[in-house]
Amino acid sequence: MVGGGQGSFIGAVHRIAARIDDRFEWVAGALSSDPARAHASAAEAGIARSYSDWREMARAEAARDDGIDAVSIVTPNHLHAPVATAFLEAGIHVICDKPLAMSLAEGEALARLARERGKLFALTHTYSGYPMVRHARELVANGTLGELRIVQVEYAQDWLAEPVEADGANKQAGWRTDPAQAGPAGCLGDIGTHAYHLATFVTGVAPAALSAELHTFVPGRRLDDHVQVMLRYANGARGMLWASQVASGAENALRLRVYGTRGSLAFDQESPDVLWVTPLGGVAQRLTRGRVNSAVAQHATRVPAGHPEGYLEAFAQLYLDAALQIEALDAGLPLPPESRLLTTVDDGVAGHRFMETVLKSSASDGKWWPVE
Amino acid sequence: MVGGGQGSFIGAVHRIAARIDDRFEWVAGALSSDPARAHASAAEAGIARSYSDWREMARAEAARDDGIDAVSIVTPNHLHAPVATAFLEAGIHVICDKPLAMSLAEGEALARLARERGKLFALTHTYSGYPMVRHARELVANGTLGELRIVQVEYAQDWLAEPVEADGANKQAGWRTDPAQAGPAGCLGDIGTHAYHLATFVTGVAPAALSAELHTFVPGRRLDDHVQVMLRYANGARGMLWASQVASGAENALRLRVYGTRGSLAFDQESPDVLWVTPLGGVAQRLTRGRVNSAVAQHATRVPAGHPEGYLEAFAQLYLDAALQIEALDAGLPLPPESRLLTTVDDGVAGHRFMETVLKSSASDGKWWPVE
Amino acid sequence: MVGGGQGSFIGAVHRIAARIDDRFEWVAGALSSDPARAHASAAEAGIARSYSDWREMARAEAARDDGIDAVSIVTPNHLHAPVATAFLEAGIHVICDKPLAMSLAEGEALARLARERGKLFALTHTYSGYPMVRHARELVANGTLGELRIVQVEYAQDWLAEPVEADGANKQAGWRTDPAQAGPAGCLGDIGTHAYHLATFVTGVAPAALSAELHTFVPGRRLDDHVQVMLRYANGARGMLWASQVASGAENALRLRVYGTRGSLAFDQESPDVLWVTPLGGVAQRLTRGRVNSAVAQHATRVPAGHPEGYLEAFAQLYLDAALQIEALDAGLPLPPESRLLTTVDDGVAGHRFMETVLKSSASDGKWWPVE
Amino acid sequence: MVGGGQGSFIGAVHRIAARIDDRFEWVAGALSSDPARAHASAAEAGIARSYSDWREMARAEAARDDGIDAVSIVTPNHLHAPVATAFLEAGIHVICDKPLAMSLAEGEALARLARERGKLFALTHTYSGYPMVRHARELVANGTLGELRIVQVEYAQDWLAEPVEADGANKQAGWRTDPAQAGPAGCLGDIGTHAYHLATFVTGVAPAALSAELHTFVPGRRLDDHVQVMLRYANGARGMLWASQVASGAENALRLRVYGTRGSLAFDQESPDVLWVTPLGGVAQRLTRGRVNSAVAQHATRVPAGHPEGYLEAFAQLYLDAALQIEALDAGLPLPPESRLLTTVDDGVAGHRFMETVLKSSASDGKWWPVE
Repeated sequence: MVGGGQGSFIGAVHRIAARIDDRFEWVAGALSSDPARAHASAAEAGIARSYSDWREMARAEAARDDGIDAVSIVTPNHLHAPVATAFLEAGIHVICDKPLAMSLAEGEALARLARERGKLFALTHTYSGYPMVRHARELVANGTLGELRIVQVEYAQDWLAEPVEADGANKQAGWRTDPAQAGPAGCLGDIGTHAYHLATFVTGVAPAALSAELHTFVPGRRLDDHVQVMLRYANGARGMLWASQVASGAENALRLRVYGTRGSLAFDQESPDVLWVTPLGGVAQRLTRGRVNSAVAQHATRVPAGHPEGYLEAFAQLYLDAALQIEALDAGLPLPPESRLLTTVDDGVAGHRFMETVLKSSASDGKWWPVE
Repeated sequence: MVGGGQGSFIGAVHRIAARIDDRFEWVAGALSSDPARAHASAAEAGIARSYSDWREMARAEAARDDGIDAVSIVTPNHLHAPVATAFLEAGIHVICDKPLAMSLAEGEALARLARERGKLFALTHTYSGYPMVRHARELVANGTLGELRIVQVEYAQDWLAEPVEADGANKQAGWRTDPAQAGPAGCLGDIGTHAYHLATFVTGVAPAALSAELHTFVPGRRLDDHVQVMLRYANGARGMLWASQVASGAENALRLRVYGTRGSLAFDQESPDVLWVTPLGGVAQRLTRGRVNSAVAQHATRVPAGHPEGYLEAFAQLYLDAALQIEALDAGLPLPPESRLLTTVDDGVAGHRFMETVLKSSASDGKWWPVE
Repeated sequence: MVGGGQGSFIGAVHRIAARIDDRFEWVAGALSSDPARAHASAAEAGIARSYSDWREMARAEAARDDGIDAVSIVTPNHLHAPVATAFLEAGIHVICDKPLAMSLAEGEALARLARERGKLFALTHTYSGYPMVRHARELVANGTLGELRIVQVEYAQDWLAEPVEADGANKQAGWRTDPAQAGPAGCLGDIGTHAYHLATFVTGVAPAALSAELHTFVPGRRLDDHVQVMLRYANGARGMLWASQVASGAENALRLRVYGTRGSLAFDQESPDVLWVTPLGGVAQRLTRGRVNSAVAQHATRVPAGHPEGYLEAFAQLYLDAALQIEALDAGLPLPPESRLLTTVDDGVAGHRFMETVLKSSASDGKWWPVE
Repeated sequence: MVGGGQGSFIGAVHRIAARIDDRFEWVAGALSSDPARAHASAAEAGIARSYSDWREMARAEAARDDGIDAVSIVTPNHLHAPVATAFLEAGIHVICDKPLAMSLAEGEALARLARERGKLFALTHTYSGYPMVRHARELVANGTLGELRIVQVEYAQDWLAEPVEADGANKQAGWRTDPAQAGPAGCLGDIGTHAYHLATFVTGVAPAALSAELHTFVPGRRLDDHVQVMLRYANGARGMLWASQVASGAENALRLRVYGTRGSLAFDQESPDVLWVTPLGGVAQRLTRGRVNSAVAQHATRVPAGHPEGYLEAFAQLYLDAALQIEALDAGLPLPPESRLLTTVDDGVAGHRFMETVLKSSASDGKWWPVE
C-alpha cells in the first residue's frame, strides 16, 4: 500500500476490504512520506515492511523473492500516476483509487503502460462492486427496461458545506480542495466521477455530449463543490447528473435511476441491498440481494438475503475480482468471466474524458460539448 | 364550471374539491360545447343549469339574481383565456386550471383584466394546497434552512410513454399533445409548470436564468414529452428541474428538495403528509401533518396526524382559500391573511415567463437565458 | 346527524365524507343535547333543521315528506343503541359509528331490529373503505397468498399516553375513558375493534379462540389503554393483535400483515394507497391504488395512481356504498354487488363478540377462550 | 474453529468477521468430524492445522507454544457444550454460536466453568454488534424514552415455510429441525432467542413473566416453526414477541420497538444503520450510524455515515470486543470498558431461561409463567 497512513479514511477501507475475502495479505507499505509517520502507521496496521519512499518500495519489493504481487495506491490524486508508473515498471500489479490521474493525458499514458506491461490496473470505483448494481447492469443489458431513454444520477454529500479545509486540521478536506493535490476537478473528481461511472456502468453506454455547470459555494474554496450536468446519448436518450458536497443533510447519497421504453430501475447506495424495478404502467418490485438469481449478483454476495452487506463488502468485491484476475494474468490464462466487471484503468480514462468535457463546457457557459 | 364533461379527469376533481369544505355549490355549467354531451354531463354531475356555450353562460349567469359567484375553468388550455375573459368581464370570479393561457402575453392580459375588474383569479396549482408544502415554505421563509443554495425539483409520470394520443381514444392525451389546444409547451406546460411553481412557492424566489433542453421521445408526437433545465438564482444558488411524461414506472412523482446553508428539506407529492427536514451534518426529521404547529399548515388541515389527507384535500384547500377571498372581495374587505397562499393569475404569468424562457433556451441549444 | 357538535372530531369527518361523492345532503341534525350548542353547531355546519332532542328529530323527520332518508350517529358509544333504535323504528336508515353498542346483547338486538325493519344499518369501520384494503381482501379470497397461516395486526396511537382526560378539557379523551359513555372497553373498543375488523375483513375469517391481556398504564384511568391478544384460527393459523393508545410517538398506526402458504401482504393505514405483496421466497411488490385492476379497488378509487387518496376518501366510500344500498332498499331491489363490502351491523356484532371474549380472557389471566 | 465445514453458513461468516478488524488469524480447525471433509474444508478456508476430532484439537493446541488463543464453536447446538467444555478445560478462550447449549442446566454449567477458568466465553448474538443497537441501549439507559412501557419485538423468516428438511439435501434445515441436534426449541432457539436477546439488550431488563404459544405449521416437522409470546415486566411494562420461520416473503426481519413514557425507538435489522426515535406527541428522527455521537456507537463504527455497514461488520464487532477482552484477561487487566457490551455466556443462560419458560407456558396452554 502506498498512502493510507494515520488520518487517512480510504487506506483503512482498502485494508479491511482486501481481508474480507482473504485473497490478500498486507505485507509492505509506504504509508506516508514522513518516515516516522510511515513506520508508526505501518506498525498500527500490522504491515511488516515499512517504507517512507514509494520509489524505494517499488524497487525493493520487485527485487525480493517474496515481494508483493500487487500494490494499492491510496494517495492524494497527484501521486496516482507517478506511483502507479513506478510499480507497473517494476512489474507489480496496481490497484488504484479514483480518479485515475491529474488529466486525461496522464490517464491515457497509464492505460498504455498497463497494457504494455500486461499487468492488472484495477480502479476502485467501489459502487460497481455492489451486487445489486451489477444486477442492474444485467437488467439493462438483457433488455428488461427496453431501449434507454432517461438517466438520472446524483451524488450528494454535505461534509464540505463549510470551509472545513481552512484551518488545516481536516486532512481529507485539505487535499481534496487543493488543485495541486486533487487536480482541476474538486467535487467533480471526488464524487462526480463516481456518479458518472455508476451511470455508464449500469447503462453500458457513455453520453455523447453534455452541458455542464460547475460552481463553488464556499467562499475561498479553490475548486468546485457543486456540479450539474445535462446529458445527451447517441440513441437520443437524455440525462442529468448532479453532484454536490454542500448539500446540507446529505450523507453519501449516490442514487441512480434509469428509464427505458419498457421499465425503469432505481438504486440508492445508502440501501445497497435493494434495487427497485418498475415496468411501464406497472408497480414497483423491490429486488433484494440474495433473492435475485443472476450470476453477477451471486458472485458478489457473501451472506443470505436479509443479512445486510454494505460498503466494505462492495469494496471487497473489487479486491476479490482483482485477485481472480491477478491469478489468471500470472498464470497466462484468460481473465475469469465472473471477474470481468472489475473496473479498470480504462474506466479511469473514461472518467477523465468526462471531467475534461465538463470543465470545457462549464468554462464556455454551458455550451454542449461532445464527450470525446 | 366550464369544461369538465364526461371523460374529463380534472372536472370531477374540481367538483369534489369544492364540496369538501362546503363553501361552494355547483349550480351551472357549460361542460361541453356539444349540447347533448353538455347536458348529459351536467345531469350526471347534478348541475342544474346546463349551457353548451360558455359565452351564453357568462351572460346568462351575470344577468340572474341567483347567478353564480365564481366560475371554474377546466377546459383545454387554449380556452382558458377567452373563457376567463368572458367571465371576468361579466363580473364573475374565476378559478382556472393551469397553465394560465397560451402565451405570456395572453397571460399578462388576463392578469391586467383581473386586476382592473377587482375579481378573484385563482389558478389551481394544486400542490401548493398541501399543508406540508405550505409548512416547507414557512421553514424557508423563517430561515430554518439558512441561505438558499440548491434546488432539485422533478415531476415524472409515465402515462405518455407510448403514442396513446394516436388513435383518438384517449381524450386527455389528445388535447395535451396537440399544440392547438395545449399551446407550444407539452410536458413543460402540463407538469413542468407545476414543478417550477412548487419550487418557487417553497423557496419564495424565482430563478434568474436557466439553460434548458426539451425533448420528444415518442415518434410522431408534436410537443415535448421530456424537459430538463439547469437553474441559476440571483444569490448564486443553483438548481435543476426535470419533468417527463415518459418515465416508465413513474405515477405522479413530483418531488422537491431544497438545500440551504444550514439544512435541507424534501417533499414527495406521493406521500404528502410528510416533510423531511435535515440540518447540516445532522439527522433527518420526518415532520408530519398534524404534528407541526405552523398556522399555515393547521389552516390547511382537516383531520389529525396519521389520518392521511391527499390530493383532493389539497385541491379543496384552494377552493377554501378562494371562498375566503371571494367573501372578502365581495365585502370590500382585505383578503384574510390565512388565505394569502392561494395561487393566482400572477403565478400563472410567472409560469409563462418560465415556459417562454425554456422554449427560447431549448431552441438556442441550451444557451443560458435570463428569466424575464 | 345525531351528535357531532362543536368539539367533535368524527362529526366533521362524516359531513365531509358524505359530500365527497355527492350522494347525501346534510339537512337535519341533533348535534348536541344542549339546545344552544346544538343550534350553533348546526348553523356552523350549514344544517337547516336543528334539533336538540334526537327522539324529537326521529319523530319529526319521519313525519315530514322531505324528511331525512338516513341518519348518521356520531355520539359517544352509550347512545348508539337508543338513537339507532329510535330512527330504525321511525323507518329511517342508519349509518353509525363504531363500536356498535355497549354490549354484545345490545348489539344483537340492534341487528335484529335492523333486519326486521329492512333498513340499512351501516357501521363506519372506515379502514375497510380503502381501495387497497379491499384489494387485499380480494387477494386472500382468490388464493394469491395460499392458505392462511399468520395474522399480525396492530393499532398504535399515543394521544392517551398521559392523563389528558383528567382536567375535563379534552372532550374526546373524556368520554372515551369513561365507562358510562364508552362501555367496558377503552382502547379495546376505540381502536382494538378497528384492528380486529381489519384483520377479519381482509382474511375473511374470524379467529376461533384468543388469549388476551388488557392493561391500563395511565394512573387513575378507568378503562384499558393497552391491549394484547394472541389468536388461534380454526384452520390452525395463528395471530397476534396489539392495540395501544399510549405508544409514544405513534400517530394512527394501524397495520396489518397476513401470511399464507404462498405469500404475504402488508398494509399500513398511514400509507393507504400502497399494498405490499411478497411471494414465498420472492421479492416484494409495491401495489398502488390506480395501478391494480381489481373491480373492488376501482370501485373505491376517485383519482389516478400517484394522486394520493386518504382517510376522508375511505370514509366517503362507506357513504357511497351506503347510498347505493339505500337506493336499492328503497326501490326493493337487491343490493348492488359493488356495494357489498360496506360494513354493517353484523360487523358490529362480531366486534362485540371479540370484545367480550377479550374481556373474559383478560379477566381470567389470559386463559384461551373460544370466540363465541 | 470447530464446525463450519463446507455447506455451513455460519462458519464462513465467523471467518470473515474475525478478519475484518484484523485481530485474529485462523490457524487451526476441526471443521468436520469427517476427516476428508474436515481437511478439504480447512484447505479451502486457508486453515493450516486441520483436525477431525475437536477433543484432539483442544489437547494438541493447548500443548503447542503457538497454539490457538481462542476457539470459535460453530457446530450444531448439541455440540456447543461438550466442545466449549473441552476447550475451556484446556485453557482456551471460547467464542460460541447461540443458542448456548441444549438446556438451561447445561448452559449454567458452562457459565460456571467459564468463570472458574477465568476464560472468555463470548456468545455471538450478532445483532448486539450493530452500532445503532448499542446506541438504542444507551438511549434507554440514559432515560431518553422515559420509563419503559411497551416492547414489541419480532423475527420473521420464510426459509422453513416448506418441509425443506425432508429430503436431507438442506444441511442447515436438517439439523435445525432435528431435536437431537437443535434441542427442544426450533424456531424458538434459532431466532426467538435472538429476538429475546435484542429486546433485553436494548431495554436492559428481562421480562418477569410470559404467556407463550409454540406452533408447528409444516406437517412432519418435529420442532416449532412459529412462536408467539406475551410479556409482563416487573415495572408493569408489557410486550409481545413473535418469531416465525414460515412467514412467507420475510427474509431476516428482526425488528424491535420500545416505547417509554417520553418516547419510542424502532430498529429494523435489515436497515441496520438507522434507528428511529420519536418523542411522545412528536415527529420521528432518523438517527444514522456515523451521525450519532455516543461512544458506544462510535466504538462499533468503521466507515462514515452513508457508507453502509452490515451484518458482517456487526459480527466483526463481537470479534473485536472479544479480542480486547482476551488481551485484558491474558494480561490480568480489567476488561476494557468499551468492550463490555460483548454478549457472553450469561446472555446464553438468560436465553435458556427464556426458552424453558416458553416451553413450559406453551405446554400448559399459555399459562402465565414467571421467567425464573
